[in-house]
Amino acid sequence: MKKENEVYYTKDIPVPETPAAGKEPDPWGETRIIGERVPRVDGYERVSGAAVYPSDVILPNMLHAAILRCPHPHAMVRKVDISKAKQMPGVRAILTNDSPEADLMWPYSDEAKTRLFDPHCRFEGETVAAVAADTPYQAWDAVHAIKVSYDVKNHVVDEQEALTSSVSIHDGGNKVKTQSHSRGDTRKGFQEADVVLEESYHAACEIHTPMELHGCVASWDGDALTIRESTQGVYAVQSRVAEVLGMPLSKVRVIGHYMGGGFGSKLQADKYTIIAALLAKKTGRPVKLFLSREETYLAVGNRPPTKMTLKAGVKKDGTLTAFDFTCTGASGAYPAGGTALVDWLIRDLYKCPNVKTECTDVYINTGPARPFRAPGHPQASWALEQMMDALAEKIGMDPVAFRLKNIPEISQGRERPYTTTGLKECITQGTEAFGWEKARKAAEEHNKKGGRTRRGVGMGSCVWFVGGGGPPSTVVIKLFSDGSVNLNMGASDIGTGTKTIMALVAAEELGVKPEVIQIENADTGTTQYATPSGGSKTVPTEAPTVRSAAIAVKQELLKMAAEELGTDVADLRFDADDIVSAKEGSKKINIKDLSELKKRGVVMGVGHRGPNPENKSVNPFAAQFCEVEVNPRTGEIKILRFLGTNESGRVMDRLTFDGQVFGGITMGVGFGMTEWRVLDHGQTGKMLNKNWHDYKLPTALDVPMEMTSVPIEMPDPEANNTGAKGLGEPVTIPTGGAIANAVYHATGIRMTDTPINPVTLNRKYAEEEG
Amino acid sequence: MKKENEVYYTKDIPVPETPAAGKEPDPWGETRIIGERVPRVDGYERVSGAAVYPSDVILPNMLHAAILRCPHPHAMVRKVDISKAKQMPGVRAILTNDSPEADLMWPYSDEAKTRLFDPHCRFEGETVAAVAADTPYQAWDAVHAIKVSYDVKNHVVDEQEALTSSVSIHDGGNKVKTQSHSRGDTRKGFQEADVVLEESYHAACEIHTPMELHGCVASWDGDALTIRESTQGVYAVQSRVAEVLGMPLSKVRVIGHYMGGGFGSKLQADKYTIIAALLAKKTGRPVKLFLSREETYLAVGNRPPTKMTLKAGVKKDGTLTAFDFTCTGASGAYPAGGTALVDWLIRDLYKCPNVKTECTDVYINTGPARPFRAPGHPQASWALEQMMDALAEKIGMDPVAFRLKNIPEISQGRERPYTTTGLKECITQGTEAFGWEKARKAAEEHNKKGGRTRRGVGMGSCVWFVGGGGPPSTVVIKLFSDGSVNLNMGASDIGTGTKTIMALVAAEELGVKPEVIQIENADTGTTQYATPSGGSKTVPTEAPTVRSAAIAVKQELLKMAAEELGTDVADLRFDADDIVSAKEGSKKINIKDLSELKKRGVVMGVGHRGPNPENKSVNPFAAQFCEVEVNPRTGEIKILRFLGTNESGRVMDRLTFDGQVFGGITMGVGFGMTEWRVLDHGQTGKMLNKNWHDYKLPTALDVPMEMTSVPIEMPDPEANNTGAKGLGEPVTIPTGGAIANAVYHATGIRMTDTPINPVTLNRKYAEEEG
Repeated sequence: MKKENEVYYTKDIPVPETPAAGKEPDPWGETRIIGERVPRVDGYERVSGAAVYPSDVILPNMLHAAILRCPHPHAMVRKVDISKAKQMPGVRAILTNDSPEADLMWPYSDEAKTRLFDPHCRFEGETVAAVAADTPYQAWDAVHAIKVSYDVKNHVVDEQEALTSSVSIHDGGNKVKTQSHSRGDTRKGFQEADVVLEESYHAACEIHTPMELHGCVASWDGDALTIRESTQGVYAVQSRVAEVLGMPLSKVRVIGHYMGGGFGSKLQADKYTIIAALLAKKTGRPVKLFLSREETYLAVGNRPPTKMTLKAGVKKDGTLTAFDFTCTGASGAYPAGGTALVDWLIRDLYKCPNVKTECTDVYINTGPARPFRAPGHPQASWALEQMMDALAEKIGMDPVAFRLKNIPEISQGRERPYTTTGLKECITQGTEAFGWEKARKAAEEHNKKGGRTRRGVGMGSCVWFVGGGGPPSTVVIKLFSDGSVNLNMGASDIGTGTKTIMALVAAEELGVKPEVIQIENADTGTTQYATPSGGSKTVPTEAPTVRSAAIAVKQELLKMAAEELGTDVADLRFDADDIVSAKEGSKKINIKDLSELKKRGVVMGVGHRGPNPENKSVNPFAAQFCEVEVNPRTGEIKILRFLGTNESGRVMDRLTFDGQVFGGITMGVGFGMTEWRVLDHGQTGKMLNKNWHDYKLPTALDVPMEMTSVPIEMPDPEANNTGAKGLGEPVTIPTGGAIANAVYHATGIRMTDTPINPVTLNRKYAEEEG
Repeated sequence: MKKENEVYYTKDIPVPETPAAGKEPDPWGETRIIGERVPRVDGYERVSGAAVYPSDVILPNMLHAAILRCPHPHAMVRKVDISKAKQMPGVRAILTNDSPEADLMWPYSDEAKTRLFDPHCRFEGETVAAVAADTPYQAWDAVHAIKVSYDVKNHVVDEQEALTSSVSIHDGGNKVKTQSHSRGDTRKGFQEADVVLEESYHAACEIHTPMELHGCVASWDGDALTIRESTQGVYAVQSRVAEVLGMPLSKVRVIGHYMGGGFGSKLQADKYTIIAALLAKKTGRPVKLFLSREETYLAVGNRPPTKMTLKAGVKKDGTLTAFDFTCTGASGAYPAGGTALVDWLIRDLYKCPNVKTECTDVYINTGPARPFRAPGHPQASWALEQMMDALAEKIGMDPVAFRLKNIPEISQGRERPYTTTGLKECITQGTEAFGWEKARKAAEEHNKKGGRTRRGVGMGSCVWFVGGGGPPSTVVIKLFSDGSVNLNMGASDIGTGTKTIMALVAAEELGVKPEVIQIENADTGTTQYATPSGGSKTVPTEAPTVRSAAIAVKQELLKMAAEELGTDVADLRFDADDIVSAKEGSKKINIKDLSELKKRGVVMGVGHRGPNPENKSVNPFAAQFCEVEVNPRTGEIKILRFLGTNESGRVMDRLTFDGQVFGGITMGVGFGMTEWRVLDHGQTGKMLNKNWHDYKLPTALDVPMEMTSVPIEMPDPEANNTGAKGLGEPVTIPTGGAIANAVYHATGIRMTDTPINPVTLNRKYAEEEG
């Protein structure tokens, strides 16, 4: 048992001084807890299984729902016969395109809406009917008993064929839109070049397939709807549901305290959210609707397959003169940004005066694309980093030296300076930590020996499009009379450690132990407004807000102390757990002795995220280095080691920082080496590997045998009051390209298409060996 | 479906003007919704059964617990044998006084603590052991299988015998304390009197016995404890649990969204709360522990039995000259304020210069007392109102005229003025509405006829000790971009309509429809700090806070509008759902068009309860009038009609206002006529009527055949920014005394002891008739 009136402050370490009430806080200088290796505050719950994820939720009287989905990539529903299904045991409600609720419009995008159950099914996996029953088995049995007759239509599922196909998925052909951008004069740029190269690249379609399936539990309380959804943004789900169902926002409560991964595919509500809500309304009982793994492969998003052609010019001294980039990306069956952000790295990463890009989104008969960790960037990096290495080779420069030659002074894409830029530091410090030169030489010597294996060393770097965060965000902190803390924040912790980092920020500022901070998050009913967790913006958006709320608490404590000590607020400072008068050092009071705090029970502080710096761009940077061993005959590739350097401003928690780096590299290995959606292009147009067995996620055997994280810590006080920038996406952008470059270094083979696996490498090797 | 971008504002009715940002709001003048008859905002949920009360909670994997309680009023536990119980099916954990957890101290009061399972059992129903099992039946079976050997000790269960008994419940005799008060010179006062009367009265012990039983569901998530408890104050439970278990406040979350009545007995955690938490910790599973009805009669509080003697002097002209009041009240087995507040009415209600009171609390071998709706007041009113009538009769004055003669100018008990005082208005307007004079005469004529029945008309009035509310209280309002509203408040709606009234306050101030206001309340984790709902302070505490939060929202909207219209905030006013520039009438913007609101998603407003007026007392007043018909031979009493007048400042919702009045009268009928704890004084000392059959709550057949509520609306702008005062307790204070006076008027019999029922009335009638 604790001692009476114990205050849970960190002892022996002075709490940093605070500005007087009303003053804006300075950015942090030195920190005590921030940047240390602190384990997750909710690690016990997550590891023990005590954490209740939405998919764990059981409500009394709850029904289970399942969705009947169209098995064809393109078909019209003629008739849905539920006569048998509705008489099956346990079946409580069925929705089909005959139900009045089916008329609700579903906004796949602002441009194209369809009905909730639309007779025109434009992709394999489109919703046709849904059942709620007493058990999941009964629901699935009933789904299987529904008879649907379809008019199967011709399909197109290849993005490269979409524009020339006779199949028109929507009225007016399969082109969604083309976006182009140019600066300078590429014709002139190519004329000035000593070397011009052109190459085509292809990035295969990846599926998010997070650990926790997609779904929710919906329940009604009178006219108020509560949705417990596995989501990255409870407020985004709330607004979509309110829009579709025509309800006041206040009457839609979305809760998602824990969630098991989304990677962009859970940024928004989906049809299943609405279906669960409608079934719950119809039955007067809570309804749980979680998709099967197969359904999530088809219907809840993907990283669109992208065909890219990059032409580049360079002078002999390594000066880039021109980039000409064209690409085609598949939105799927609805407008969903098939080439979204694909050209950003071409425009922004390396210094180049003459740039032209043209990106075309096309419809194909597959599920719509969705943002996927660093949308567009890994694809572009795959092309750009390989092209950079090819250019370097042509002009006889080291790949690292060539990149360092082309570090831009400003953000070329936004035509304004960065607050801080660590691109150069990422490359130089990474090169040193990795032992680049030595490793390259060692690999080349190994290869000269002509043994069974070849070794190669490659790298890539990146900037991430955003990552500075920004308003709106609000956080409320309640400091209890015993010094323990409740932190109320609407942002979801999507598994990245948001709660842990926010606990550290509050602990740092308030001088309390992180373990007495209770965090309430991601509930539109009870926590504060936040935008979805995505875009590597959660920490730089929420951490400054948490800090502001903590400062508001301190200012309130100072006011109380001033009243009690009979001094001015302006003279008071925090010193360990006392509040001390700077003028009259003898006047001090321990926080636990503040009679006003005892009376009030709680001190509340509200923080709002301040504005971003004007006319500057806030972006994180990264570079990655790897060494591979290849057996060209078998195509086997072993990643011997990987090193990631990341300049994401201040390191908030070193443990979650490294976790992001290792996770990002692992996902990049999947992008570059194991993952791709296999469609039956020739015949049925259906997906052939919609399960965890046939769709190859990288396993423990595929990830690098050694991974190293080297943070380049450059706190960015201009970015926000914590100096932190985003991290979750830059960690995965350069991985694929770096691997491809290492494979080239090992084998002399340019793998232009993802994934590089034994089959594709061996085939290319066989082709080139002739 | 709603129209796109619809804003849920009340149309056609101008929203009241708002002061510019930073200015303090004026108290409301006219109101639009406040004061109307608005049904409960959660009426559907409550009536349909959809509302989840703590006793409805089912958590996955939940165990059920039961408590073994001492069957003797006074005993030492010698040995607890759980050998059989622990082997019974489904039994997961047993706690006894041998468990290490039993050493935790339980603070029945600051003065006396005992162990959680204390071998010295000082009342029937003290905790001896507890079991958690898979089902409630298995838990009870195991409880019954625990063998306990007791050393049974002598007991004392009568408050009038406690001081002279040879039994000492604690070391040092059975007197807890005596509190006395005096003003003026009573000796002189009695000398000046023309008439001096002295009478003894007795108020029997009442049990709260609310609809929902006492209990909670406890569950752990790592080191964080969540308690779903049927409670009047989640923060009070949180601090008690944290204190007893030695935990940080932030790690104890207490939730109590709905609750089914408490009347004071649920103002604080109880031993069962801790026991549930310990069993949940021990088993790693959620534990539900709700008491049986029998247990709640014994162990969770009562209105203490009170013996009172009142001596009063009056001049012939009706001027009171002196009161001398002594009383003895039973705290039960632990210090719990047996006479708490009993002397307040004597000191404060009627003008009297010379007053002496002496109140003694004693220990007896029963469960501890707890605050019970208007603690002390119904008892004192029982004595005082009968004495007033007796004095009036002696000097030949009408009871109403006599009371009006003695209206005080200030609060005599606090020696300062009231903000508003409606005592006189309650009496005069009530007299008129009831038709007092006519009814008295008609009754007297009826009685002269000498039929089988007698009729009588009586009245009483009161002031309530507190009822002005006050800080601390915090409320957060989120106004969503569609104009719907989320209101976050930590106060419990204990069934009195708090949520409804707060919705009306927000609707009034924001000009939105009450049905688009979602209220989150009573959760220490997610809602704001509030003191327990009790003392008739919830509305006057929380309503001004809600109003302040709503005003903060409006000020934020004005800021946005000023920015967007290019005007000064000070020139802007709300007008219907537009914000209009007073200077340039053409400049206006609809709230839904504010681009900053769309961007931010939410406007947040924080309200804190402002301070109370200095040097003034804020109190509500009431008077009640009733007519009874008595059959003196059988003792049957029929209440023909009852009328309550209440001056509680502004009427907030007329429906809940009247509900309080009718409920208060009904409970007063219970106090005066049906309820009393029957103890086996002579032999076992055990309670004989610990169930709803033998303990007589008033039923539909016992309540008045006609009840009328006459609000005396005197908005009290000095009290707070809404002008509302407390209501829940004054409505029940004068009921018993008014009935006794009516019975006297009918029969000439003074019923000095509660309850007046056929048996007691008939006995007294027989005695007096000789």
